[in-house]
Order: sequence, then structure tokens, then C-alpha cells
Amino acid sequence: MGQQAEPIEQMAAELAKLPGIGRKSAQRLAYFLAARPLDEVRELTQGIYLGREAIRLCERCGNYTSDNLCPVCADTRRRQDLLCVVRDPRDVAAMERMHDYHGLYHVLHGILSPMDGVGPEDIRIRELLDRLENGEVQEMILATNPDIEGEATASYIARLVKPHHIRVTRIAHGVPVGSDLEYADEVTLSKAMEGRREM
Amino acid sequence: MGQQAEPIEQMAAELAKLPGIGRKSAQRLAYFLAARPLDEVRELTQGIYLGREAIRLCERCGNYTSDNLCPVCADTRRRQDLLCVVRDPRDVAAMERMHDYHGLYHVLHGILSPMDGVGPEDIRIRELLDRLENGEVQEMILATNPDIEGEATASYIARLVKPHHIRVTRIAHGVPVGSDLEYADEVTLSKAMEGRREM
Repeated sequence: MGQQAEPIEQMAAELAKLPGIGRKSAQRLAYFLAARPLDEVRELTQGIYLGREAIRLCERCGNYTSDNLCPVCADTRRRQDLLCVVRDPRDVAAMERMHDYHGLYHVLHGILSPMDGVGPEDIRIRELLDRLENGEVQEMILATNPDIEGEATASYIARLVKPHHIRVTRIAHGVPVGSDLEYADEVTLSKAMEGRREM
Repeated sequence: MGQQAEPIEQMAAELAKLPGIGRKSAQRLAYFLAARPLDEVRELTQGIYLGREAIRLCERCGNYTSDNLCPVCADTRRRQDLLCVVRDPRDVAAMERMHDYHGLYHVLHGILSPMDGVGPEDIRIRELLDRLENGEVQEMILATNPDIEGEATASYIARLVKPHHIRVTRIAHGVPVGSDLEYADEVTLSKAMEGRREM
């Protein structure tokens, strides 16, 4: 498109690197930013960059933080004997939205995936085992996603942790609350039956 | 949300300033960027900012450009006697995608809107009249949007230009190609009837 101003193309090309933003949306956003004052665009882009620059991994659990410890690990009122293992920091955010879990987390920053060449050394499993050494943790909840890789990672960790004699649990699979049985896939439905409970 | 890392919130707050990006999408994007290398995020945010910084308005038509003249005005093969008046630079891009218009443009950078306090002095009407002074333009096509403000702006300009004795036209309104009569609103349909042509 020789007729489109080059800077617009440049902005659109960068914006299109964001997930879920296609070529058309990126152009729309580029035109939007082109019409905003330069100061405002500087504030926006610098805000994003400085935010990214400030991000550190919590030295205990691997969650995002701006300090040494994340807000969860820094909160001494949380149960120190309960550990929830998740794939990445946005899973911590999802769990926290529930306001119902009062233990700690361990963020793996990835999931075992031989197909993608991700092995146990590539995710924070070593750090997880180290955390179990002091004997404080009594229960470990494996909250990786209920997909093939999530299940495989959960099984792998459960096996590794066995010698530590702590309780290892897996989040329940079943029909999501508010959904319709009709739309549940067979595997979910079969898991829901398998995990049925006395009323 | 005290449990969410502050830098993530900062990034999400900036991203949510973009149109069409709500709080949830902004958080998703923030987590995406948090997981990318710092260098990559610098490149992305700087690319956007430097693009915005490089944007200038074509000194003749007001289109976006990185030079004194935009690519259209700089192209001497374009018809100098034909002028298409549009609301903003993204309309130029839309027209150019058609590959069928070979004249010049004039970008108003806004539309008359008494309700929003936008009067004739707030958009590039003065510059438009100045361009007609040398007598080169033979036809002016008013291609503002077919909404109330677009129509009012077109009428206003048509009246102003009358003394110059040039041909003033308005883009046709009608049923969009590929659409369904059933879904056309009454005004569009009535315009389509009014503008009917011999076959």
C-alpha cells in the first residue's frame, strides 16, 4: 500500500504483534493513535514499557511482582501449609478472583510439552521441589489446565512429590456452573459422573 | 485487586485506553507482554511512539505523511482537477483501496457538529477554499459520511464553493453491493430509489 503513510504502517505493524489484534484492527488502532496528541501517545507507550520493566518474578512462587515477594507470598496471614501449582501468573489472578483460596501458589511458567520441546528443566519444577524441603507444605493442589499437557504435567509432578509424603490433590473436573449439560463434551461429562458426590 | 501485581495493572490501564479494548482484553494483553522479553516490548512500544512522532499532515491536503507532501499529492500523475473531500485520513485509505480514484483529496480532520461545538473554523474548510483559488480544480466530490453531520457538512461546503463555479458532486447513497434489500433501512432504500439509473 504505497498510498498509506509509512508511520501509520509502522504503528500498525507493531500493534498487530499483540494477540487477537489482526491487520485491520491494528490499522484502526494506528489511525486512532495518529489522531491523539503526541504526549498522550508517549504516556501510553511509556506506561506499557515501564510496567513491563518493573515486572519481576516473586523469588518464592514465581508470580509477577514489583518486589522481592508477590502480594500473596508477602501476606503472612495466608496458609503456609497449602500450595496451589499453576501454569502461569494469570492463573494466580483467576484463582484470586475467587476470593476463596487462602494458601500459597507455585507458578510453573510453562507446561510439559514434549512436542514443543518443553521438558521438566524448562519449567519451575526444581524450585517447587526445593520449596517442599522444609516440610511446611501439607497439601499440594495441582491446578494445571484440564487438557492433555496439563494432565501430564500434573501426573508428572504428583509422581515426583510422592516421596515427600504430602497430600497431593487435583482440581475437580466437571460441568461448569451455569452451563448446559447439552453443550458439555463427553470427556467433561464422564469426569463429572466419575467425580459425583453424595448430596 | 491487591493481589494482582502492580506493573500488570499499570500496563492494563494503558492498554485499556485503546478503543475496542476493554478491561479484560487489556489484562490479557498485559499478561502477554509480561511474558515477552523486555527488548521485544521496548521495540513494540518504541515502534508505536516513533511512528506517531513521525506523522505529519500533508501541507496540501492534510492526509498523514512522513514528508511535506503525502504520497497522493506527491504523485504528479494524479488528476489535479479532481478533488475528493473526506472527513479524515482513514477515509483516504478506504478510497485508495478501491484503486479507482485518480484525483486528489482534501482531509477535513473533523465534521461540522454544533452539538459537539465543532464549527467551520475547527475543520480544514479555510484550507479547502484556498486550494480552489488557482482555478485548477474542476470537480469537487463531497465524500463525507452519509449521516446527519456528514450531510450537513457536505451541504455547507457546497454552498460555500458555489461562487467558484466548479462542479460539486456527492457520492451516491444506496444499497451496499452484496447486501440484502431486506436489511436495508428505509432512508437508504429511499435514497437508492431516488438515485436509480437507466439500465
